[in-house]
Amino acid sequence: MSDRGGSPDPADATGSDATADRHYHVDGDLVPAEAATVHVEDRGFAYGDAAFETLRAYGGDAFRWEAHADRLADTCETLALDHGLSNADLRSRIDETLAANDLADAYVKCSITRGRQPGTLDPRPDIDPTVVVIAKPLPRGGVDGEPAHDGPATVQTTKTRKIPDRAVPAAAKTHNYLNGILARLELRVTGADEAMLLDSDGHVAEGATANLFFADGTALKTPSLDGPVLPGITREVVVDIAESEGIPVEEGAYTPSDVREADEVFLTNSTWEVRPVRTVDGLAVDGDGEGVAGPLTTLLSRLFDRRVEERYYDGERL
Amino acid sequence: MSDRGGSPDPADATGSDATADRHYHVDGDLVPAEAATVHVEDRGFAYGDAAFETLRAYGGDAFRWEAHADRLADTCETLALDHGLSNADLRSRIDETLAANDLADAYVKCSITRGRQPGTLDPRPDIDPTVVVIAKPLPRGGVDGEPAHDGPATVQTTKTRKIPDRAVPAAAKTHNYLNGILARLELRVTGADEAMLLDSDGHVAEGATANLFFADGTALKTPSLDGPVLPGITREVVVDIAESEGIPVEEGAYTPSDVREADEVFLTNSTWEVRPVRTVDGLAVDGDGEGVAGPLTTLLSRLFDRRVEERYYDGERL
Repeated sequence: MSDRGGSPDPADATGSDATADRHYHVDGDLVPAEAATVHVEDRGFAYGDAAFETLRAYGGDAFRWEAHADRLADTCETLALDHGLSNADLRSRIDETLAANDLADAYVKCSITRGRQPGTLDPRPDIDPTVVVIAKPLPRGGVDGEPAHDGPATVQTTKTRKIPDRAVPAAAKTHNYLNGILARLELRVTGADEAMLLDSDGHVAEGATANLFFADGTALKTPSLDGPVLPGITREVVVDIAESEGIPVEEGAYTPSDVREADEVFLTNSTWEVRPVRTVDGLAVDGDGEGVAGPLTTLLSRLFDRRVEERYYDGERL
Repeated sequence: MSDRGGSPDPADATGSDATADRHYHVDGDLVPAEAATVHVEDRGFAYGDAAFETLRAYGGDAFRWEAHADRLADTCETLALDHGLSNADLRSRIDETLAANDLADAYVKCSITRGRQPGTLDPRPDIDPTVVVIAKPLPRGGVDGEPAHDGPATVQTTKTRKIPDRAVPAAAKTHNYLNGILARLELRVTGADEAMLLDSDGHVAEGATANLFFADGTALKTPSLDGPVLPGITREVVVDIAESEGIPVEEGAYTPSDVREADEVFLTNSTWEVRPVRTVDGLAVDGDGEGVAGPLTTLLSRLFDRRVEERYYDGERL
C-alpha cells in the first residue's frame, strides 16, 4: 500500500478513504461514517481540547492496548479531562468499531473531547465527554508484507520549533496539532517526507508524527523524554527490542549534525512502525541515498514484525 | 450580565446558552443550532486546524470588521489555508446569522477550517473549507450599560508559558487553544479570573484570552507584538484612543514585577472590552483591592464605550 499526497501518520492514516459502508463510534453509538459528526460547540472542535490515541489492530486485536490506554490516561490527567470512562469501556468501543467494519488489521483513532461546553474557555469540572472511534483498513506489514509507508523517508530540519513542555507538554497527545502541521507545510519546498523539529535549545526533538532514532557505531540513539518528545509506543517497543538483543541504547540530547552524520537513521510510529530514513537535510544517510536500510534498522524492523506476527501464531488466527 | 462557572472570553463567550430557536451558519447554510455539526474527519476537529475570529456586533453591525477580516486573512496565510472566500462572502454569512437570530447586539465567532481531509497530517493544497458562524445575544456595555464581565479581574501569573512564535505564531488565531486552557486550569487553585502568561524569557506576554495593559505614572504600557502576543483588535483600538488623547503609549518587554507594581492594570478583548484588574498575583493594584478602576482605565473605558455608541448615533439605529 502507498499513500498519495502526503505521508500517512499516526495522527490520521488510512489505506483507503472510501467510507461508503464504514461505521464510526461517536458518543456511544455506532453511526454511518458519513454521519459521524460533533457539535460545533464541542470543545474538541472549538479548541482542539481533546486527547487521542492512534493504534493498530492486528488480527482484530488492538496492539499494545495497555500502553495506549496508559498514555491516554496521562494525557487526560495533563488536561484535567476527567472523563470517567474505564479502559474496558474504551476498549469495547474500539472492539465494536472493528467488528462493525469487519476489520482485523486496521488503523484506529480513539479521541476523547471535553464535550460540548458553550460559554467560556475555562473548562467546567463536570464534563460530558465525547468519544470518537475511527477505524479503517490497514493491512499489517509483517514479515512478508508491505509497510504502510512509501519506503525510506527523506527528513528535513524545519524552522518551526517544537513547542516547549512548559507551554504544552509534548507527552500529551491532543487535537492541538498545528505545530506539526506548520512543520509539514515547510516541507512543501523540498518535498521531504518528515520534519525534524528541534527544541528551544536547538536539540533534535522528533518528527511531526514520528520519533527519530539513529545509530553511529557506538549505540542506538534517540532523543530523551526529558526534552519535548512524545513517549511513542513504537519507540518504546523498539528500545525494548534493542535492549533485549544486547544493542546499547542511549537516550540523550543530540544536535542535527549528530543525525546528519549518523550511519543509520529511522523513524517510528504506530502506522509506519519502523521506517528507514535515506536522507537528512539533503544528505544521504546510507552513502548513496538509494534508501537501502542499514543492518541495524533492518534487524530492528524484522524483530518488530516478528513481535506483531507472534500475535497471530500465538493466538487463534493461525 | 454575568457569567457563571468561568469568565467569558473572546474565544467563546455568550450571554445565554439557550439555543432552542437559534440558528448557526455551517458550511454555507443556516441550520438549527442543535444540528450545527462538523464531520469528525474535518481537520478543524482532528487537529484544531482552523482560523477564527470572535467579534462583537453592535446595532446589527460587526464592530471593526475590516480589522477582524485582515487578521483572519493573516492567520490563514500563516496556516497556508487558502480558502478562496472573499471578505464580502464571510461578512454576508455573519450578517445572515445575525438576521436569522434577530440579533442586533451579539457575540459572533467565525471559524474557517481546512475542511474534511481524511488520511494524512500533511494538508492538501486544494481544500474545501468548512465555515462556521456562531452568534449569541450579548448586550453592549456602552456608556450607560453593564460590561460583559464580572467586574474587575484577579490576575495570576501561571507556570504555563506562552508558546514561542517559532513553534506556533501567537498572531495566528486558531482552534489550537490548549496553551490558554492549561493556563486557565492552573487558576482553579487561586480562583483568579485570568492568567498572566510569560514568554520563554520570563517577560509578560498576555492573558489566556486577553491583552494586558498597565500604567505606572509615566505611560500606558503593553507588551510589544515582538513577543508572542496576539495583535488584539480591542488592544489596537485602546492604543489608538490613548494616542489620540495625548497619553504616552509604550510597547515593550516587561517583567511580572512591572505589572505587580503598576498603578493601574487592565485587560482587553472583544467581549470584555476594557476590564479593570484589581489584583495581580494576590497583590492589590488599586491600593485596597476593592476593584475601583483607576482614572486612566476609567477614561479609556469611557472613550471606548463612546466609540461604540457613535455607531448607534451616527447610524440608522437612533
